Amino acid sequence: MKLPLELPVIEDAELATKVKHRWDQLTKPPGSLGRLEEVVLRLALIQGSFMPAVSRRGMYVFCGDHGVVEEGVSAYPSEVTAQMVRNFLAGGAAINVLCRWQGIQPVVVDAGVKGPLQEGAIDSKVAPGTRNFAVTSAMTGAQAEKALENGMRLAREARGRFDIAGVGDMGIGNTTPASALLCVFAGVSPEDAVGRGTGLGDEGVRRKAQVIARALELHKPSPADPVAAVAAVGGLEIATMAGFLVGSAKARLPVVVDGFIACSAVLVAKTMGPQLNDFLFYSHRSAERAHGRMLEFLGAAPLLDLNLRLGEGTGAVFGMAVLEAALACYREMATFEAAMVSRAE
Amino acid sequence: MKLPLELPVIEDAELATKVKHRWDQLTKPPGSLGRLEEVVLRLALIQGSFMPAVSRRGMYVFCGDHGVVEEGVSAYPSEVTAQMVRNFLAGGAAINVLCRWQGIQPVVVDAGVKGPLQEGAIDSKVAPGTRNFAVTSAMTGAQAEKALENGMRLAREARGRFDIAGVGDMGIGNTTPASALLCVFAGVSPEDAVGRGTGLGDEGVRRKAQVIARALELHKPSPADPVAAVAAVGGLEIATMAGFLVGSAKARLPVVVDGFIACSAVLVAKTMGPQLNDFLFYSHRSAERAHGRMLEFLGAAPLLDLNLRLGEGTGAVFGMAVLEAALACYREMATFEAAMVSRAE
Repeated sequence: MKLPLELPVIEDAELATKVKHRWDQLTKPPGSLGRLEEVVLRLALIQGSFMPAVSRRGMYVFCGDHGVVEEGVSAYPSEVTAQMVRNFLAGGAAINVLCRWQGIQPVVVDAGVKGPLQEGAIDSKVAPGTRNFAVTSAMTGAQAEKALENGMRLAREARGRFDIAGVGDMGIGNTTPASALLCVFAGVSPEDAVGRGTGLGDEGVRRKAQVIARALELHKPSPADPVAAVAAVGGLEIATMAGFLVGSAKARLPVVVDGFIACSAVLVAKTMGPQLNDFLFYSHRSAERAHGRMLEFLGAAPLLDLNLRLGEGTGAVFGMAVLEAALACYREMATFEAAMVSRAE
Repeated sequence: MKLPLELPVIEDAELATKVKHRWDQLTKPPGSLGRLEEVVLRLALIQGSFMPAVSRRGMYVFCGDHGVVEEGVSAYPSEVTAQMVRNFLAGGAAINVLCRWQGIQPVVVDAGVKGPLQEGAIDSKVAPGTRNFAVTSAMTGAQAEKALENGMRLAREARGRFDIAGVGDMGIGNTTPASALLCVFAGVSPEDAVGRGTGLGDEGVRRKAQVIARALELHKPSPADPVAAVAAVGGLEIATMAGFLVGSAKARLPVVVDGFIACSAVLVAKTMGPQLNDFLFYSHRSAERAHGRMLEFLGAAPLLDLNLRLGEGTGAVFGMAVLEAALACYREMATFEAAMVSRAE
């Protein structure tokens, strides 16, 4: 893969002026809808349209297992990943409820779950889980490339089905690779990069930091080689999501990013395509301890802080809701002229 | 009015245990839905129900004019209040678009708009605007009492129509009384209590602080007498909203509070009924400069920060959306047992 990838340029002074002008015709003080005005402008620039669309919405939940769970870094056993995939496909998980609430289509991607592919999941299974990266690299270079390519292909397909996509995750143990990637790309220490995940105690958190420190020592991953880094200490769902992110940007498909795991995929993808942020909407600040550091490094100001730490794309649904509401205001509000309302003196 | 008002006690250890137990049966790590779990618990306690309801939702927009606009404290002329009321009734304002988006019923309350009552607005008009409180009290004591009573009556009616209500405002000039009330109740200086409102420049903001300082000197309002304070430097829409807030609490109707103006009504209402916060959901942190101080004084941690500064209840709509989503998760998610998902080790 030739890096850095060239991503489309969304800058368009004429279109930006037109969008801002429309906002200022609507019956409200200029700028008073705050971030709603910002997000519509960027949606317009990404889609290259004065009246962007967000009605066809897909939530991609990338799922995978992690060999490093052997080290005792998760409160839940690996089998829960496949059980939760079944729960997603049956419509019983939080992400299903929230997608129904918003009329979003959930898309469950098996990027590397242990066990057989389940009916209804998209087959992007590179391997039945990663290897234990405390002992050997999580995946081979070829597996990492394969996962990235799967993600890029999924993004091209998504562009045909949806106006906007969300990305979330499921994978028992995956805060460990996410924290490891934060160490690699942002130079954060393992102690500062780890957190409780789904509910580790203090000792578990310490163990997680030690496992990451050992893996960094063993593999010496470098931010200069993002593909090798994600192969060394990443996850299959994270690598596939990273491919999806760059693929979406190439296709000018706006993407709403979930929390800690999704942002770790951005760490990889943004190194591959530095202009990536132009295409992303960061949805929320997770309760996972190191997410603040990660967001800061990514230059991201998320829309919401609801103290969520579930993953699955649950935060991204709220982000999508804000985007839809913003666009409704932009599209449907009366102008000063039509409503015969006086302007500022 | 005999103060303090007695509000219902929502504490119910047995119900709280049942609600928390249900959250912990659902297929997610305990506590991982963060604030969504909190708000459902409190909705249950307010409504005294294991399965609270938020499907019938009303957004009360309290409207009124302000004599103090004569002092040059607003970027817009007073006539815009009535024009925006017409816009609300025609469905063209931001609050209309957002209410349609969420299936919320807007209720436009004329608490003191200049000019005749408009068809479709609820008649709670105490006077056609307040007097200029830089010169004399904004309203008489009797007018303040009348506005509070109107609000309480509206709350009783709301309890029959809705499961939950939102409160927002429209009133050109109303950040000036809101800032003045912040000075009275929280002891903040006029300089620290003022902000740009709908778009004042630096000189306008300075003038606003001076007008408030003068009024405080003139009327010497005290937090010990909230009715007299709102009469001196408040607004008719603010007083009516304050009445609505205490009336809703008395009727155990949960209320979602909008931004700076709505919170200034809480300053008044919370002094009347100290347990008021039990019944309120603070929706968002406004971009109006002193809202942070106001929230801090109220002991409020709002759900969202979207940099909004429009009023009308626009922030409260997003708060209601979060509550609805939270309740959907609580109601519809599968349990560990039903989904056959393993629990934490």
